[in-house]
Amino acid sequence: MNGSLFTPVASPFLVPFDGSFNLANCRTAPSKDAPGKSDNVAALQASVANFADLQKRLYANDRYSLLLVFQAMDAAGKDGTISAVMSGINPQGCQVMSFKAPNAEELDHDYLWRVQRALPERGRIGVWNRSHYEEVLVVRVHPKFLDGQRLPERAPLAELWPQRFESINAAEQHWARNGTVVLKFFLNVSQQEQHRRFVERIDDPSDNWKFSLNDVAESDHWDEYQAAYQDALRTTSKPWAPWYAIPADSKSYMRRTVADIIVATLSQLDLRYPEVAPDVKAAMVAARAKLVAPKAAGG
Amino acid sequence: MNGSLFTPVASPFLVPFDGSFNLANCRTAPSKDAPGKSDNVAALQASVANFADLQKRLYANDRYSLLLVFQAMDAAGKDGTISAVMSGINPQGCQVMSFKAPNAEELDHDYLWRVQRALPERGRIGVWNRSHYEEVLVVRVHPKFLDGQRLPERAPLAELWPQRFESINAAEQHWARNGTVVLKFFLNVSQQEQHRRFVERIDDPSDNWKFSLNDVAESDHWDEYQAAYQDALRTTSKPWAPWYAIPADSKSYMRRTVADIIVATLSQLDLRYPEVAPDVKAAMVAARAKLVAPKAAGG
Repeated sequence: MNGSLFTPVASPFLVPFDGSFNLANCRTAPSKDAPGKSDNVAALQASVANFADLQKRLYANDRYSLLLVFQAMDAAGKDGTISAVMSGINPQGCQVMSFKAPNAEELDHDYLWRVQRALPERGRIGVWNRSHYEEVLVVRVHPKFLDGQRLPERAPLAELWPQRFESINAAEQHWARNGTVVLKFFLNVSQQEQHRRFVERIDDPSDNWKFSLNDVAESDHWDEYQAAYQDALRTTSKPWAPWYAIPADSKSYMRRTVADIIVATLSQLDLRYPEVAPDVKAAMVAARAKLVAPKAAGG
Repeated sequence: MNGSLFTPVASPFLVPFDGSFNLANCRTAPSKDAPGKSDNVAALQASVANFADLQKRLYANDRYSLLLVFQAMDAAGKDGTISAVMSGINPQGCQVMSFKAPNAEELDHDYLWRVQRALPERGRIGVWNRSHYEEVLVVRVHPKFLDGQRLPERAPLAELWPQRFESINAAEQHWARNGTVVLKFFLNVSQQEQHRRFVERIDDPSDNWKFSLNDVAESDHWDEYQAAYQDALRTTSKPWAPWYAIPADSKSYMRRTVADIIVATLSQLDLRYPEVAPDVKAAMVAARAKLVAPKAAGG
């Protein structure tokens, strides 16, 4: 048993487990024969309804938890995808966490501390908008962030990233062994489409708040980010915690694809409603009879 | 770099890293030529003073943290040892956690969740009275406790314990790589001495509160516990997180030995007080001059 609770969905976007992943070969846009927007919208709607039903069972069954990790370059559409895919879910069984730059308390601990605290409870769904992978992405592109972590002894960078992958893989396998279904989505946008979206944000006053000059500065590190993403996905896509690299240039296609993968994964689990023991059932039947019996006159 | 921040103290009680550990060969009482009680008390006092000084440096240096794990059979003296060894420490830089049976929220997460939350911050000391090792000790002796963990799929027991050791080793190595000095103490009491202490607790009304019938019931599983401890210590004693199996039949010897190992470990670290940059130092000197200058009459 490798800790896997499910079989990764056989998608063209599944990152292989054999170390052969090549990001440059991955689509950022759907293929020519992919379904169009109205198809995607209808499919998303159907998947969202299925997901809502599966979540009820997940909650009642109370054995598995589901962790959805979203990583992407800026403007790839993380927020919109999370909003669209999770819109049918009972918020009581779901928590979306946005991991921003670590605060002082978080920096005073190892880099997995804050995400481990945020792991979903049994029966619940955790959605991570950014995650521990920032530690091998933005920190890898800007190693100066390591200084803020105040490590007493720092491995040479050539050893540090493999060590981090090793720790991340071990942590995720541990989560899986203890009942967490881990699915990781890289929303793979092209730089051209990213720039188009930045321009939209600048041109549309109601979208101005989404624009940050820093996003443009980060886009200048595009190739370094691509290299970091490729290495991270190649090294940490595992049967118990697969990565999917989803074409992100079409929002409707991206959203329906993500929702389809979640639903196809959850559908594999044995999410039975808890069974009531025979004696409890008998007591329920007796209670029911009493509840519906005509009241004696005068009490 | 294996993540080790220090060299394990060369003690006769260090559990070897080569898998050869044999608990039956370990002393529960000091050897004939070991120092006597008054020697031990004086040595403990000296070590406690050194420890207090090292803790001040650890806190000011703010790069390392120290994690002390204590495991033992009942009445071996965990509480008394923690109290004796930690008595000189500034409580602001130290937190003692007693891990009892997991509560409902804790059972809703993987078994490392609650201890990871409790990891000491950089510059601080965490003392764990029991720990994640209960998951391979009491749970191993009583596998029925696994039912409470509501795992959706459970590995056969022959695989489950090795999986747990693997996860624990990976987690501790991750902590060490990120600046936590991990020292683990098994207080090795003999069953004969344990029973003598139980009788004392029954005979002395002021100690009655310490006595639990359940402790006696657990003592009936002595051999199973010894086997579980041997396997756990053998498998999880690592250069970056060593176990020490300390003879516990003599309290004074046990306490001074634990304190000596802590002090000898911390003494290896480069716990410099943070240096003040030259320009800040110059500003401090200028501020000092102003503070001590005679006030001009009439302000």
